[in-house]
Amino acid sequence: MEQTIQKAKAVASKIIVEAGKIAKEQFGKVLSIEEKGDHGDVVTEADYLAEKVIINELNRAFPDHQIQSEEAGNNGVESDWVWHVDPLDGTNNFAMGLPVFASSIALLYKDQPVLGVIYDPFLDRLFVSSLNEGSFCNGQSIELKKRDNVKRFTIGWIQGHGVQNEEQAVKLRQHIDVNCKRMIRLWAPTLAWAMLAKGDIDAIILYNSEGEDLYSGLLMVKEAGGAVLDFSGEEFQTVSGTPYFIACHPEHKDYVMELVHKGLNE
Amino acid sequence: MEQTIQKAKAVASKIIVEAGKIAKEQFGKVLSIEEKGDHGDVVTEADYLAEKVIINELNRAFPDHQIQSEEAGNNGVESDWVWHVDPLDGTNNFAMGLPVFASSIALLYKDQPVLGVIYDPFLDRLFVSSLNEGSFCNGQSIELKKRDNVKRFTIGWIQGHGVQNEEQAVKLRQHIDVNCKRMIRLWAPTLAWAMLAKGDIDAIILYNSEGEDLYSGLLMVKEAGGAVLDFSGEEFQTVSGTPYFIACHPEHKDYVMELVHKGLNE
Repeated sequence: MEQTIQKAKAVASKIIVEAGKIAKEQFGKVLSIEEKGDHGDVVTEADYLAEKVIINELNRAFPDHQIQSEEAGNNGVESDWVWHVDPLDGTNNFAMGLPVFASSIALLYKDQPVLGVIYDPFLDRLFVSSLNEGSFCNGQSIELKKRDNVKRFTIGWIQGHGVQNEEQAVKLRQHIDVNCKRMIRLWAPTLAWAMLAKGDIDAIILYNSEGEDLYSGLLMVKEAGGAVLDFSGEEFQTVSGTPYFIACHPEHKDYVMELVHKGLNE
Repeated sequence: MEQTIQKAKAVASKIIVEAGKIAKEQFGKVLSIEEKGDHGDVVTEADYLAEKVIINELNRAFPDHQIQSEEAGNNGVESDWVWHVDPLDGTNNFAMGLPVFASSIALLYKDQPVLGVIYDPFLDRLFVSSLNEGSFCNGQSIELKKRDNVKRFTIGWIQGHGVQNEEQAVKLRQHIDVNCKRMIRLWAPTLAWAMLAKGDIDAIILYNSEGEDLYSGLLMVKEAGGAVLDFSGEEFQTVSGTPYFIACHPEHKDYVMELVHKGLNE
C-alpha cells in the first residue's frame, strides 16, 4: 500500500500540472461551451483536453485501478483503489474569464482518501497531500490558522447541485452570510479547500456536495491539521454518502458547529 | 474639455498598468495587513505603493484637478475635474491569495464620469472607456451581451460597507440568490463592472455602494451599450448620492428591475 501511494503521488503530481497547463492555455480563447444537466453547469473543450491527459496516464500507470472522472465517468475496473478526477474544477469561472479554477485528483483506498493533489495553473501552485504525511504547497508544509476573533471569519460555502433553492440550504447559507465577516463562494471547491489548508480562509461549510471535487481537498485540510466533521459532529473517516461537513482549525470546531446548528434551526 | 479627456486617457492608461504591476509583484508575499474601519476591510502595503505611483503622476500631469483616493483621501484642490482612484480594488482577495483584484481610475467632469480605466494585472487586461467613445479591453471594442433565457443569468452583487446585515439588503440579496443561475460576489466591484461590459456576466445589482470603485466601471458599462438605472428606474446621468443601481443589457432592464422590486417587497 505504501509503495502504491508513493508511486501515485509522483504520477499524479506530474500529470496534474500538465493538465492544468493545458487548461490555462485554453483560457480566454473562444470556447465551445456545453450546458450540462439542469443546473446550468457548463463543460468546455478545456475540461475534455485536461481530462484526457490525466486519464490516459492513470490508466497506463495503474491499469488495475478504478478511475471515476467528472466528464468521462467510470472506467469500470473493480478495485479497492479508486481515483477521483476533476480535470477542471470551476469551469463556470473559467468560461466567464475568471482565473479561479484548478485541476484535482484524489486517490481512495477502501473508501479512505490517501492522496490528494490540486493544481492552480494561474498561480502555479501545486498542493499535495498524502495520508499521515502532511500537506504541502509547492513543497512547503502548510497548515490551518487559528484566529482570535471568530466574528472576523471568512467562511467558504460549498453546495451541491440542485440545492440552490432547497429550504434548509437557503436558511443555512443565509445565516452564515450574515454571521461572519465574509462568506465566499468560489464555485471551485478544491480551491476553497486548498485555501483553508493554507490558512487563507477560516472554515468551510459544505452542504450536500459529493463528487470528484471533494476528497483531494478534504484530505488536504485534514493533513494540514484541520478538523473535518459531519453535521452530527462525527469526524470524517471514510466515504459515507452523507456529504454535509464543516472543516476548520480544531479549536474552532465548536463555534462553526454551533453556527451550522443555529442556521439550520432558526 | 475634449483635449483634457484625451490627455487624461493617455496618462491614466499608462499609470494604471504601472500601479497594477506593482500590486501584482507584492501578491503572495508576506504582507503587513491592517484592518480598516469596522467592516473587516483590510489595507496592505500594495495599496499604498500602487496609490503613490498613481497620485504622484496625476498631481504632476493635472496639478489643478481634484484627486479623491481610497487610502490617501482628497488632495484638497477645488476643481470641476475630480479623479477617483482605487489603487487596489479587492484588497481582501489580494490578501488571502485570490487573484481577483484590479486597479481603477475614473475622471469626472462636473459630476459626470468622462473616463474610466481598470487594469487587471493578473490577466494583463486593460479596460478603457471614455464618454461617447465606447469601451475597450486591450484595444478591442467590447459590449454587453443579450441572453435568451433570463433564468440562466449570472448576476454580480455589489454592496456597500455596513449593509451586510441591513434588513432590506439581506432580503434583496437572498431573493436574487435563489432566482438566478448564479449570483457572484467578487468583492472587487470594478472587475464585476468590467465583466459585465465585456459580456461575461449578465447584470449587476448594486446596493448602497458609493466610492472610488464605482464610476470607472459604471461608465465602462454605459459605453459598452449597457443600461444603468437607479432602483426607481431613472437612468444614471451624474453623481447623485443615491447609489442603488441595476446595470444590464437594455433589453433586460425590465426583467432585472422586476427582480429588484420583488426582492425588496417580498
